Amino acid sequence: MVRKLAHIAIAVKDAEAASKAFAEGLGLEKRGPEVVEGQGVRVMFLPVGETKVELVEPLSEESGIAKFLGKKGEGLHHIAFEVDDIKKAIEKLIAAGVQMIDMEPRVGAGGKLVAFAHPKSFSGVLVELVQA
Amino acid sequence: MVRKLAHIAIAVKDAEAASKAFAEGLGLEKRGPEVVEGQGVRVMFLPVGETKVELVEPLSEESGIAKFLGKKGEGLHHIAFEVDDIKKAIEKLIAAGVQMIDMEPRVGAGGKLVAFAHPKSFSGVLVELVQA
Repeated sequence: MVRKLAHIAIAVKDAEAASKAFAEGLGLEKRGPEVVEGQGVRVMFLPVGETKVELVEPLSEESGIAKFLGKKGEGLHHIAFEVDDIKKAIEKLIAAGVQMIDMEPRVGAGGKLVAFAHPKSFSGVLVELVQA
Repeated sequence: MVRKLAHIAIAVKDAEAASKAFAEGLGLEKRGPEVVEGQGVRVMFLPVGETKVELVEPLSEESGIAKFLGKKGEGLHHIAFEVDDIKKAIEKLIAAGVQMIDMEPRVGAGGKLVAFAHPKSFSGVLVELVQA
């Protein structure tokens, strides 16, 4: 069961610079930057209510985020929903005809179990599940 | 002051069809469709925690959403933040160097006061303010 929107991730060239409009303009609190080694990215987090904005900057040209930026430029990268039981959530998505990128959960940022669904199943939006 | 993320709006060709993955796959509750005459769109709403996903389908080729779809295809259209006082929020954004599309609040869907900030000020993401 989906509990809430966990985060909105935006691909950016410079996370610190990108955080200015969200922090100074919208008044959101900034946390970070935090380097996520496994994904080759630096992330600024801006909590807003029960969710957060994540500004994700690539640390190398090999990072998926660098490739995204090269192809599409800055903008929304994915949205993540928090679920109770990620295995059951994946089964439910598959039963509904959703194409999964990850058929099995894998360990993502912060050691949490995550799985991505293909954007073509969600109207062009890359969707992540994160186990609470 | 920003209270929460009010909604995430996704531009889609067919709101009912697009809602299937969110409703059957993620188990979100569907509301709508609702026609917003002023904007020439049909919208499906899917609440999730304190925010909601809005699937926005154009009703005519003149709709801004139709133009967006023609140019970029289906995908995120904008994110909306709920604020206490939209006039103060606009002033704060301008003071932080954010480029506004609407320098003054205007009446949006549901009769609420809204204002949009230019995506180039928010890392490629179109940002809406909605007064609570």
